[in-house]
Amino acid sequence: MTRKRIVILGGGMIGSAMAADLKRQDRHDVTVAELRAEVRARLETRHGVATRAADLSRPAAIAELVKGYDFVLGALPSVYGYQTLEAVIGAGKDYCDISFMPENALELDARARAAGVTCVVDCGVAPGVSNAMAGYASTRLDPFQSLEIYVGGLPRERRWPYDYKAGFAPFDVIEEYTRPARIVAHGRVVVKEALSEPERMDFPGVGTLEAFNTDGLRSLVHTLKVPFMKEKTLRYPGHVQLMEAIRETGFFSKEPLQVGDVSVRPLDVLAKLLFPKWTFAEGEADLTVLRVVAGGLEDGRPACYTWDLLDRFDPATGLRSMSRTTAFPATIVAGLMLDGVFRRPGVHAPESLGREPGLLERLLRELAARGVSCHAQAPSRAEEPVAV
Amino acid sequence: MTRKRIVILGGGMIGSAMAADLKRQDRHDVTVAELRAEVRARLETRHGVATRAADLSRPAAIAELVKGYDFVLGALPSVYGYQTLEAVIGAGKDYCDISFMPENALELDARARAAGVTCVVDCGVAPGVSNAMAGYASTRLDPFQSLEIYVGGLPRERRWPYDYKAGFAPFDVIEEYTRPARIVAHGRVVVKEALSEPERMDFPGVGTLEAFNTDGLRSLVHTLKVPFMKEKTLRYPGHVQLMEAIRETGFFSKEPLQVGDVSVRPLDVLAKLLFPKWTFAEGEADLTVLRVVAGGLEDGRPACYTWDLLDRFDPATGLRSMSRTTAFPATIVAGLMLDGVFRRPGVHAPESLGREPGLLERLLRELAARGVSCHAQAPSRAEEPVAV
Repeated sequence: MTRKRIVILGGGMIGSAMAADLKRQDRHDVTVAELRAEVRARLETRHGVATRAADLSRPAAIAELVKGYDFVLGALPSVYGYQTLEAVIGAGKDYCDISFMPENALELDARARAAGVTCVVDCGVAPGVSNAMAGYASTRLDPFQSLEIYVGGLPRERRWPYDYKAGFAPFDVIEEYTRPARIVAHGRVVVKEALSEPERMDFPGVGTLEAFNTDGLRSLVHTLKVPFMKEKTLRYPGHVQLMEAIRETGFFSKEPLQVGDVSVRPLDVLAKLLFPKWTFAEGEADLTVLRVVAGGLEDGRPACYTWDLLDRFDPATGLRSMSRTTAFPATIVAGLMLDGVFRRPGVHAPESLGREPGLLERLLRELAARGVSCHAQAPSRAEEPVAV
Repeated sequence: MTRKRIVILGGGMIGSAMAADLKRQDRHDVTVAELRAEVRARLETRHGVATRAADLSRPAAIAELVKGYDFVLGALPSVYGYQTLEAVIGAGKDYCDISFMPENALELDARARAAGVTCVVDCGVAPGVSNAMAGYASTRLDPFQSLEIYVGGLPRERRWPYDYKAGFAPFDVIEEYTRPARIVAHGRVVVKEALSEPERMDFPGVGTLEAFNTDGLRSLVHTLKVPFMKEKTLRYPGHVQLMEAIRETGFFSKEPLQVGDVSVRPLDVLAKLLFPKWTFAEGEADLTVLRVVAGGLEDGRPACYTWDLLDRFDPATGLRSMSRTTAFPATIVAGLMLDGVFRRPGVHAPESLGREPGLLERLLRELAARGVSCHAQAPSRAEEPVAV
């Protein structure tokens, strides 16, 4: 097979993990584009990866940059996600992205089809692997009646009072705790308050966690016809109650507050005090938990598919679990795309892959080969068909 | 008996309650000194009390003011407590005060004795009634081995997330949550972190509360020789954990924090957001809980004195419980002093009264006559003398 030239946009936590994985596979040539010189230097010395300087906040610079490559992997902050997707489509390159952009990427589907490029977005763990599982379930269940996704990135050691550290930008965590959560009930989109409806759940190997509403269904609201769907975030018990109290006190507010003779946004004060406490130390262990439960009828009988994914910090590579579980689905899917296994012009979320025969199994097998193991419960089925 | 002229320094929540009580008794003439015109107007119209304007932040103004009166009651914020005590002693007037000054008032004892004036400070509920109980126990127990004081002012209705409103200045509450707590263990003063060692306690009529260390022993550290003494603050369960988390996050800090291009003290931001939520609404019901437990040997047998005080908002007068239970001990003790029942030049905390035969009983009886009832458990005693 011909070696291809891959460029990774962004050399942060996720981009580094992508580069390390592709370098280890050594099936293609890899370059990381990154503005920060010290980040480039670390990538070159620690992972032996080629880098080049580029200002990735400018779509024009991205369009110019990607010309010299066969495939593009996106690992930029969410704020740059949409404009980067547009630029890569405009440049006519296939693309796999994990940026978690706030916009609806599927709106660029027609443009990608017209350009003949295949793009897969939201290709991390959740969104990402969870979407592929949902897509798979949609090929087995008829009707597909309910989908529940539970996901969390956690520090291995619980430290009072937050029992939490952020595997990605802390401001995005607060954003997640603020934005109203869209779930689907009785076939309709229902808006719930973020942090609402906490429920305790036991996870083998982790213990009891608490799941609460966040706005994580994203593309699934549009691509699946399932009457009951929800996505919840997992944290150690107590975290959500504390964050609710912090929110209730007013610290999530972006409205300037007059304090003495200065004006300050409470959220900025919270961020300044809180985010240093939420930052993982170098080498500090984390873990990632994902549970996906899909229910419906299969051959007329009630059936339920359940996947549990539990991944931990890898001391050998120093890669945190959140980096591993976000980066590896993207590098694996990139491999499938480069091998021509998945090639369909347009903008796709990973449920499109999950619908293809054998692709979820292949994704999970390749994740397992990288130490990210997922336990799929044998589908529970009722003995007798039931009337729908 | 001759009518005397009493002046109350300060017409706030406590001063108003003192004035209303003395007016109702109608044994003496009462005047409230107060700078704020609207407060004076309310005192005159609502309680029919005479008032006069005075800047009570100036000791010289107080010295001049009190000349025309026979007795002085203090109801000023803690920050003015010590300088006011000095001014009243200098003017040669007897004085009863509830200001909860941070300084040690007993340092002015010699000056008061030289001037021939009797001053009782810390004369509210706790410090106050609790001190009188401790003084009483010190006349019964030999040795007096342990003293535990539990006190809290609470809203009747619990509201998430703080389950608390402040019966006095919210800044003083945070101060109480910040200042290291001095307790006595094995005869030595031991410093504990504020908010530490929470313990659940059940109170008849209130339910389960949580008690935690605060710096409330004050004069008792100096006036009693008891090897184990502690004072704890009572709140509804959960409050202290939330306040600890808030403190841990850094919001009690008085160090300026750079946030963007402004510098702000985190405590000031917290205060601005929190204190409106901690303010009682007009007519909102509160309650006051006090438990004092004194243990030791009496006639060679183990004995334990326990007092439980539970008081509630009085809808008839509109006086909150915290105002009632703080003001009435002072007006009652003022009455004892004016009647010559307690007269001993010097500066005293209320344990001095409690040591006098019959005075604690009289204080509790007069409190009960004002609707503040206290349940004294019959002292539990072992049947047999034990070796000390």
